[in-house]
Amino acid sequence: MKSPIPDYLHHVLETARPNEGGAAADYIETLANADTSKMAICLSMVDGNVYSAGDDKIEFSIQSISKAFVYAIAIEDAGLDQVLSKIGVEPSGDRFNQLSLERNTNRPMNPMINAGAITAHSLVVSPTATLDQRTERILNALSRLAGRQLHVDEEVYQAELKDADRNMAIGYMLKAAGIITCDPQEAVRGYIRQCAINVNVQDLAMMSAVLANAGVHPVSNEQIIPQTSVRQVLSVMTTCGMYDAAGDWVSSVGFPAKSGVAGAIIGALPGQVGIATFSPKIDERGNSVRGVAMCQQLSREMGLHMMDASHVARSTVQTSVSTLVEGEHKTHNGSCKREVVVFKLRGAVRFPGAERLTRALARELGQPDPLDEGSGSHADACGIVFSFRDVFSLNFIARRLIHENIARLLKEGKVLVIIDPSEVLEWDKAKAKDGRHPKVVDNETEARDYIGGTGCQAVSQDPEW
Amino acid sequence: MKSPIPDYLHHVLETARPNEGGAAADYIETLANADTSKMAICLSMVDGNVYSAGDDKIEFSIQSISKAFVYAIAIEDAGLDQVLSKIGVEPSGDRFNQLSLERNTNRPMNPMINAGAITAHSLVVSPTATLDQRTERILNALSRLAGRQLHVDEEVYQAELKDADRNMAIGYMLKAAGIITCDPQEAVRGYIRQCAINVNVQDLAMMSAVLANAGVHPVSNEQIIPQTSVRQVLSVMTTCGMYDAAGDWVSSVGFPAKSGVAGAIIGALPGQVGIATFSPKIDERGNSVRGVAMCQQLSREMGLHMMDASHVARSTVQTSVSTLVEGEHKTHNGSCKREVVVFKLRGAVRFPGAERLTRALARELGQPDPLDEGSGSHADACGIVFSFRDVFSLNFIARRLIHENIARLLKEGKVLVIIDPSEVLEWDKAKAKDGRHPKVVDNETEARDYIGGTGCQAVSQDPEW
Amino acid sequence: MKSPIPDYLHHVLETARPNEGGAAADYIETLANADTSKMAICLSMVDGNVYSAGDDKIEFSIQSISKAFVYAIAIEDAGLDQVLSKIGVEPSGDRFNQLSLERNTNRPMNPMINAGAITAHSLVVSPTATLDQRTERILNALSRLAGRQLHVDEEVYQAELKDADRNMAIGYMLKAAGIITCDPQEAVRGYIRQCAINVNVQDLAMMSAVLANAGVHPVSNEQIIPQTSVRQVLSVMTTCGMYDAAGDWVSSVGFPAKSGVAGAIIGALPGQVGIATFSPKIDERGNSVRGVAMCQQLSREMGLHMMDASHVARSTVQTSVSTLVEGEHKTHNGSCKREVVVFKLRGAVRFPGAERLTRALARELGQPDPLDEGSGSHADACGIVFSFRDVFSLNFIARRLIHENIARLLKEGKVLVIIDPSEVLEWDKAKAKDGRHPKVVDNETEARDYIGGTGCQAVSQDPEW
Amino acid sequence: MKSPIPDYLHHVLETARPNEGGAAADYIETLANADTSKMAICLSMVDGNVYSAGDDKIEFSIQSISKAFVYAIAIEDAGLDQVLSKIGVEPSGDRFNQLSLERNTNRPMNPMINAGAITAHSLVVSPTATLDQRTERILNALSRLAGRQLHVDEEVYQAELKDADRNMAIGYMLKAAGIITCDPQEAVRGYIRQCAINVNVQDLAMMSAVLANAGVHPVSNEQIIPQTSVRQVLSVMTTCGMYDAAGDWVSSVGFPAKSGVAGAIIGALPGQVGIATFSPKIDERGNSVRGVAMCQQLSREMGLHMMDASHVARSTVQTSVSTLVEGEHKTHNGSCKREVVVFKLRGAVRFPGAERLTRALARELGQPDPLDEGSGSHADACGIVFSFRDVFSLNFIARRLIHENIARLLKEGKVLVIIDPSEVLEWDKAKAKDGRHPKVVDNETEARDYIGGTGCQAVSQDPEW
Repeated sequence: MKSPIPDYLHHVLETARPNEGGAAADYIETLANADTSKMAICLSMVDGNVYSAGDDKIEFSIQSISKAFVYAIAIEDAGLDQVLSKIGVEPSGDRFNQLSLERNTNRPMNPMINAGAITAHSLVVSPTATLDQRTERILNALSRLAGRQLHVDEEVYQAELKDADRNMAIGYMLKAAGIITCDPQEAVRGYIRQCAINVNVQDLAMMSAVLANAGVHPVSNEQIIPQTSVRQVLSVMTTCGMYDAAGDWVSSVGFPAKSGVAGAIIGALPGQVGIATFSPKIDERGNSVRGVAMCQQLSREMGLHMMDASHVARSTVQTSVSTLVEGEHKTHNGSCKREVVVFKLRGAVRFPGAERLTRALARELGQPDPLDEGSGSHADACGIVFSFRDVFSLNFIARRLIHENIARLLKEGKVLVIIDPSEVLEWDKAKAKDGRHPKVVDNETEARDYIGGTGCQAVSQDPEW
Repeated sequence: MKSPIPDYLHHVLETARPNEGGAAADYIETLANADTSKMAICLSMVDGNVYSAGDDKIEFSIQSISKAFVYAIAIEDAGLDQVLSKIGVEPSGDRFNQLSLERNTNRPMNPMINAGAITAHSLVVSPTATLDQRTERILNALSRLAGRQLHVDEEVYQAELKDADRNMAIGYMLKAAGIITCDPQEAVRGYIRQCAINVNVQDLAMMSAVLANAGVHPVSNEQIIPQTSVRQVLSVMTTCGMYDAAGDWVSSVGFPAKSGVAGAIIGALPGQVGIATFSPKIDERGNSVRGVAMCQQLSREMGLHMMDASHVARSTVQTSVSTLVEGEHKTHNGSCKREVVVFKLRGAVRFPGAERLTRALARELGQPDPLDEGSGSHADACGIVFSFRDVFSLNFIARRLIHENIARLLKEGKVLVIIDPSEVLEWDKAKAKDGRHPKVVDNETEARDYIGGTGCQAVSQDPEW
Repeated sequence: MKSPIPDYLHHVLETARPNEGGAAADYIETLANADTSKMAICLSMVDGNVYSAGDDKIEFSIQSISKAFVYAIAIEDAGLDQVLSKIGVEPSGDRFNQLSLERNTNRPMNPMINAGAITAHSLVVSPTATLDQRTERILNALSRLAGRQLHVDEEVYQAELKDADRNMAIGYMLKAAGIITCDPQEAVRGYIRQCAINVNVQDLAMMSAVLANAGVHPVSNEQIIPQTSVRQVLSVMTTCGMYDAAGDWVSSVGFPAKSGVAGAIIGALPGQVGIATFSPKIDERGNSVRGVAMCQQLSREMGLHMMDASHVARSTVQTSVSTLVEGEHKTHNGSCKREVVVFKLRGAVRFPGAERLTRALARELGQPDPLDEGSGSHADACGIVFSFRDVFSLNFIARRLIHENIARLLKEGKVLVIIDPSEVLEWDKAKAKDGRHPKVVDNETEARDYIGGTGCQAVSQDPEW
Repeated sequence: MKSPIPDYLHHVLETARPNEGGAAADYIETLANADTSKMAICLSMVDGNVYSAGDDKIEFSIQSISKAFVYAIAIEDAGLDQVLSKIGVEPSGDRFNQLSLERNTNRPMNPMINAGAITAHSLVVSPTATLDQRTERILNALSRLAGRQLHVDEEVYQAELKDADRNMAIGYMLKAAGIITCDPQEAVRGYIRQCAINVNVQDLAMMSAVLANAGVHPVSNEQIIPQTSVRQVLSVMTTCGMYDAAGDWVSSVGFPAKSGVAGAIIGALPGQVGIATFSPKIDERGNSVRGVAMCQQLSREMGLHMMDASHVARSTVQTSVSTLVEGEHKTHNGSCKREVVVFKLRGAVRFPGAERLTRALARELGQPDPLDEGSGSHADACGIVFSFRDVFSLNFIARRLIHENIARLLKEGKVLVIIDPSEVLEWDKAKAKDGRHPKVVDNETEARDYIGGTGCQAVSQDPEW
């Protein structure tokens, strides 16, 4: 069986193709001479699987899309605080090459307009670095993201350099305002060089997938960008990525994106997919006309809008309670029913999942509530099992909540066994309150054995453990 | 065991309490006299479970938070196209009560500034409706969202009316621009009346949970707001909800929110939770100082930032392949191996889940690829089972992809059984290509029986089906 | 002989007539139905002589031209300081009906945009006056300026009232900002009523001539507007009168002006002439197309540009020195030459004239300077005459300088006679230093007699006195 | 007698001295180290007479005051049309170093902000000129205006160059917008060099006096700047000279002015006087604090406000009618009364003067009007004399009107004699209609002789001719 996904992407491509609006950027010849019949689209899954259609090997200069990644590099090299003190995060409502700074702070409005991007560039490596050092740093970082060695298109670089007056104006403005401290000519040349790096849609989709994958490279599984930087970059792409129509993009497409004047657009939907499209004709805002159309279609048809909830939480985690009735039993703590209650979680557990576990614990193990039939039915169970076998990850609050639940149950004298082969719970014996700890085991057999040993002779009928 | 969640919320409350910044709004006496020692926080899970801490029964006027919900009502009553033709979706960077309209279109920048909110109000029911009709419509809708009957605070309404000059200016501006067509005095009075509806944090959290739950009321499970409206409202809250610092809010908090001048803030994280906080002291932008602090803490500690991916997709769906070797078998279609391959999905399946199924199908059932060991190992299987028993929902693209997979397998002459007790697949016999259909059954036993009948004598050892 | 001036105005009219640009204002029917073939021009000299051409009896609503005169009335009724605290004087670069106030001060930018004009209206009579009181005050003042009883065009008033949403918005904005304190509806209605007063070009030219004549009515010779108000009004007309192109108007036309949407324009060149034109078709700024053309032609051909100096000063005043040789003479102060030196001024003497007199005094009556042949030649004259017979006026600095000259000469013991039949010198005996006074007489005969009596037997050969 | 004018200027200086507001510009050391106790004031009359007080020989860099004069040079070198296509004339309401251009036209708002001044500089000599050529041109022109050789302060130049980032930004912005076509670095360096030219208040007052004197140098009497350029420069100084408070300056001071960051201010009142003040402490707008105070005092006390009319026109010209009764006389044209009517003008005759003459002619020589007693009393006079002996100049419209009057009188067969020793009438025989010409003579005797010869034996008793 052949995968229908490439067929679908082909369909998206052909749906957008008849749109003849826009024109290739004409401020430099290389862009003006682009073959406007070329089109491509590429998706990269967060596990590295890649689908593409159209001219997916055609190279073009990355242009403003580099801004998103160089912003991440600047955060890494200068620290988020320093970056935030130099570059704002507000949508500007202005043209990308606006000669303006925020009232009061003097900062460029955001890193996606040229002023902010030149500033971000100047923070790469260090404020005293040379143009070559910064170029090397950026080229290496982008190559690592793309998963192959990228190169500067020298023709594009030279051409852009000849038409750099506006950017030079921005550079000197930034210097005058004390935002950049290096030579404006160096900063602008370096920025232009970064924009002239050649990529294809497969490179861009992979780079975007790193953002979608919380900074971890889908193929190498290395954490290339720290998670906080990813959050920052995606946030700024959300409100400032598509120039002067932030609100329109968020409501009609709904995933963080960035466009380049050569005709590419990238998108990243956290946890799902990295996207790249290419078609050289751009609209008056500088966004690829067909690229925007393809992104809108993908968002609509693939449900990629980040405000489309579709009951994610309910399904992400499921709590099941299994009871193994065994009659009464005497423990050191008084008498208990000879039963073991099992609570299972699965998936990537965030607050809602942990909340459900918490609720189930309170309901099943608490006192019976006359208004809630069935509540408190296991109040006297002497053995409790948490199974995290199918849990992929816990986030901060989920872990904190579960830790707290464990502490409370132990305080009540419950026998508690945790099945956690992947150690997602990160139970730290040193930190546990009162020196009380649950038993942590790797599988159901060990859990059964342990509970048996405590006297809570539980024999499960549950086929799952 | 007592749930630690209320304790956590109490902790959040107390962490924010020492912040004495800001002051109660003083433009009307009722607000100026607010007891600034009062604080509350409330979370409503998307299944209706509610946690709160602090003064969670204290009532206050909903104020600008009404804008988000009345925008949804306007979309329902006038249609999204009409609403978009009258109200933009761009962040303004301006004060909430700015006297300005978009260049060219004359529209208010967005529905979260007063000009847009008054316009949205004027679209409720119909442009020719009376003030009373609109008030009744809004009061009913908000009461239904909150799950209890709400009321207008007449004292607040009368006081606001006396100080309504700025809003009257906005109303007349909108009339002059042709944006509203009714009497400006009526529209402004109605808008002020909508802002004077009294709520508490539990009401607001529940109302937000409807937004987080794709428009379905967590308690009644009714679809109160159409899903497209929810997407629109949340999108606009994302970029325009917290007034003139859209980018700062998105990057530092990262969930759609809206604040009111009485000191409340709501937040909604799609698929997860509805949030409400209350503390009367507001900053110069009109946002509750402690409310903002609490939202930041929740975002940070609870991982509520929408750009925090945390590998959601990988875990949401898992594809398992079970093979039941039974030797060769002759079918009408030639010979096949007497084995059945089972593909299981679980959770809320979106594109990434369907993509994984598709990939597994292509790998397992396709021709062997010398570069991919193990690929094509089941190319000759005569029975295939898709189990959707644990699937909560499919979105549009997932369903479309799976339909396409089914069609392709049927075309290849495979025996295909679908276990789909909840009918999430929505297989439409009328629309299927070529009249070919899979067998759809409710459980594993039926699937086994059917395959047995086809001659593919499969006996599963898999304990899971 | 028939005056060619009406012929010239007719020529100006016909030169502008072929310009078919613009269109009659169409926001109310009365203006939209204006007969656009009508045209008129009128000049009023500062002595009340009036020339006109075209449809000089056609009446039309005064509209925004009223702003200039009501600003003057507001200054009279509320005081300049109060008016300045409420209304700025800066050109706005914005549309006349802009909904904006000065940052920081909250004041309307200037009294020529609607916001400033409504504010000025609200200051007429008193902030607590009724609409009728203000209307009566304005109607009376404008009638007095025009020299005939004017009336409100009730049809225009009613029509404007129906289309007053924008102005109502402005009114409420001003109330909200604390700029106006009365009911915004009253202020706006009163403002609209003031704009609906009917005039013809002869009325307007006469009203402008009052401004050109330093506030004195050319016909009645009454001081209708205080001189400081006139200066303020003309200053504001210079920078703000022709809406959003202050600089263009000043450089291309160069006299203070104000236009009205009904098609009229007034201009006033201080000391020279009041101008009014009428032609209903207006451009997108709201200025009459043909009116602007006529003003430009008048400025160019009639030399009305206020920056066109043309040696005014040299000619305005001339200082002649007449000496009447009479031989030696003994006075109480020692001996002097029996000669009398006469200094004559004429015209409106300002600083340059007084400076010339001062310079002549210093040269003629001072000590001989070897480098300046002829200087000091009358150092020993015993009689000095200042003739102000032909002096029309002295300004502050000229009077001050001459007083100082007189004081110094008296201190030197000179016999000094002032011929000043119009008392332009305003010599105040009470204030003179040291009780020393010159002899002030009405004509040459008295001067001659007086000097004769002092022993300086001067017999003039000068035919001029 | 000693002139009190220096004393007055001394008084103005001392009145302003206690004002300790502001601070010396501190962006370069030379300015920061300025001796802030230095103060000077200087007036230059339009005939070259100069008065000064204080530190009138102290030199300082001309800074932005150069903008006014270089604008004039640019108009001379590139033509007004070209200059207007590159630089607007609107007040900006912005800071002097704003990085902004006019919407639509891309032009700098006006030549008094840096962007406009750099553009004007680039138009000096030619767009392809070198920095040295432009500097030489400007230095020569400014030296000629000042009446002595000026020099660049190299220390100031070098220091400003080091702090030129903001201006470099402006230069590149202008290049990018196509406003300047030369190398931005050259344009900015040249501009900085022009600003570093050293002057003292006497230089500046003389330079301003050229502007006040319609472009004619007060001392050399050469036309240094064409009159149309002067008008343009003064117009722009009026609306844009004092940065972002055009309206305030026009209403409170009322003469065209320009300030420089080194602490100087120049002013020019057309036809009257050139003004310069100096005091290094500047306010936040960049205007000298004491300089502004001195200008306000001069305006108030010396009546220098250009909107202060003071009846200039009435006095500038006076028309007297002298009749010499002689009984009946037969002429070729019928019989006439043996009388000669004499019309005299004096001063600088503009429209109002010519209008009065015209009116007098029509009244005296036209048919009797029953409503106007005395009118038509000389309808039958056979000799008419126009005396221009005391006329200093005629402007265009005055000349045109008088020519037309002459033509009409000749057509009626009147004997007409013009006394015009200075040839102000510019009667062009070639152009006269119908070949009819008046007799033009140099003095009264010739006029009398000529009329006697025509048979109109007029013997004047009038002592004035």
